[in-house]
Amino acid sequence: MNIAIVGATGLVGRTMIRVLEERDTPLSSLTLLASGRSAGTVIPFRGKDLVVQELKPDSFHGVDVALFSAGGALSKEYAPIAAASGCTVIDNSSAWRMDPDVPLVVPEVNASDAFLHKGIIANPNCSTIQMVVALKPISDAFGLKRVVVSTYQSPSGAGQKGLDQLNAELAGSEPTVRITDHTLAGNTVFHTIGGVGESSEEETKMIRETRRIMHLPDLPLAVTCVRVPVLGGHGESVAVETLRPCTDVDVRTLLSSTPGIVVMDNPVHAVYPTPAFSNNTDPVYVGRIRKDESVENGVMMWIVADNLRKGAATNAVQILETLLEQQ
Amino acid sequence: MNIAIVGATGLVGRTMIRVLEERDTPLSSLTLLASGRSAGTVIPFRGKDLVVQELKPDSFHGVDVALFSAGGALSKEYAPIAAASGCTVIDNSSAWRMDPDVPLVVPEVNASDAFLHKGIIANPNCSTIQMVVALKPISDAFGLKRVVVSTYQSPSGAGQKGLDQLNAELAGSEPTVRITDHTLAGNTVFHTIGGVGESSEEETKMIRETRRIMHLPDLPLAVTCVRVPVLGGHGESVAVETLRPCTDVDVRTLLSSTPGIVVMDNPVHAVYPTPAFSNNTDPVYVGRIRKDESVENGVMMWIVADNLRKGAATNAVQILETLLEQQ
Repeated sequence: MNIAIVGATGLVGRTMIRVLEERDTPLSSLTLLASGRSAGTVIPFRGKDLVVQELKPDSFHGVDVALFSAGGALSKEYAPIAAASGCTVIDNSSAWRMDPDVPLVVPEVNASDAFLHKGIIANPNCSTIQMVVALKPISDAFGLKRVVVSTYQSPSGAGQKGLDQLNAELAGSEPTVRITDHTLAGNTVFHTIGGVGESSEEETKMIRETRRIMHLPDLPLAVTCVRVPVLGGHGESVAVETLRPCTDVDVRTLLSSTPGIVVMDNPVHAVYPTPAFSNNTDPVYVGRIRKDESVENGVMMWIVADNLRKGAATNAVQILETLLEQQ
Repeated sequence: MNIAIVGATGLVGRTMIRVLEERDTPLSSLTLLASGRSAGTVIPFRGKDLVVQELKPDSFHGVDVALFSAGGALSKEYAPIAAASGCTVIDNSSAWRMDPDVPLVVPEVNASDAFLHKGIIANPNCSTIQMVVALKPISDAFGLKRVVVSTYQSPSGAGQKGLDQLNAELAGSEPTVRITDHTLAGNTVFHTIGGVGESSEEETKMIRETRRIMHLPDLPLAVTCVRVPVLGGHGESVAVETLRPCTDVDVRTLLSSTPGIVVMDNPVHAVYPTPAFSNNTDPVYVGRIRKDESVENGVMMWIVADNLRKGAATNAVQILETLLEQQ
């Protein structure tokens, strides 16, 4: 199995390489691709030094699966080229996520959708992935009536630029790159928003992608996405209304036995998931599970995951592994 | 009118002095009181140097109104002593907030309750104050059915200790004081929580105090309180279900004409309130006002205020001014 990573020098691309190295995913070769600017960069992988090559239309000859993480515009251009040469694309950008011909996959939730692909599979938005992993077992057991979520997201979700702005501000220097005119350090900001009274791009993604992945096209969701000055890891405060009665004990028991989820919920001893704890790890962590007394049937919970790993690179590699298992 | 501040050297006490200075609240004398440890500290006020005196049972002779911000235990002991000597206490701790004989007051919401006092008036929790200021006009116009709120709170809500831990961590040094064993910098944490499946102290305060201030004893609230690494200012992501139909336009118009509220809501140009912007100012800021399509009648909004000013010192001084206006 010959694998390529497109955007290998970016924040997610580098995390994909690290995840592939750690997980011993079976592969015959790994080709690292990036723009001409980054070509020539040397990145170690499984004891060898790999040289990043410039992405070109003929880069995909002999490649079986390509993991893309190089932005939407590049995916729009190159994913069809790769697919046409027989390569399966797992794309981390938002370019293809709502295309009905492109499955949008979180393996814990809808692995079988991956096999419906026609050359391209989309990796969902980071904040969506961690939420649906926790919502899926609740949906199966109790049914979902409505979800209200507020996020606490790391600027690393905007790539290296977001981290660079935050780190410069934390060091007291003027950022040379910016993802927002607002200060990130010691502040909270919003993602790009199209119009007054409208959802942000991130909020819209969470609504649409959650419905699509969970096969619940009409699921009512109220979503507010906020960036907080955290270097890695997204937090989510989620209030779930269920169709059938459920208690916090039910949900704690259910999620504790769900693969991919680690329940950390002993707040008396300050045991709950934090972004700092999740950093550089793969699970989706859930804590602060409480009965929601403000509705007939509902629970509240706090969901945390490393947005660059389970929220991006790890989920993409899990999709790759899903394809490999089927072979 | 002779005024005293108890806890004058603390974070809120010092802010009370600054607010009194700025607002030209009419007063004949200002007495600064604190523990023996802080006695002797010199604090400038309206061109004079005031010397902090040690708090003693006889400190309140001749004092008309005392603003307390020195913790619950001290308020429990000294507020009745002050009240017995004819002084009216405006107490910023949580000690008296749920006492039926003690009014809990946010002047924009329930100013008239202040006059029912029997010597002690309670100043609500910071995160409660800013929320009820925004909820009150919506409640009056459309009725409240349910409120779901997730907070983004500065560690300064825990006093100087919280700021000291965060600042030490941001500077890369080991904190000498702590409000949590978790890291605050680059992380999100929760307030003190009593038991598994339970609300935190802060969450319980928001539920009980909101109901009491708004005279809605059964209002359903789902509350999650989170600390984020912000030096000053609390943010709140609030989803309000109303009894009667309302749109985001209705709410934007309504809040724009409500005293105490500044609407900042042009997200296309990144105009929305942030904690950094609110720092050292008095208004309650509201932005990101959106129709909530996930319920029959509802809106979502983002509420920000300086937790040390409107969330504590300014609200206490406004209660004082409410009493003075009546004289």
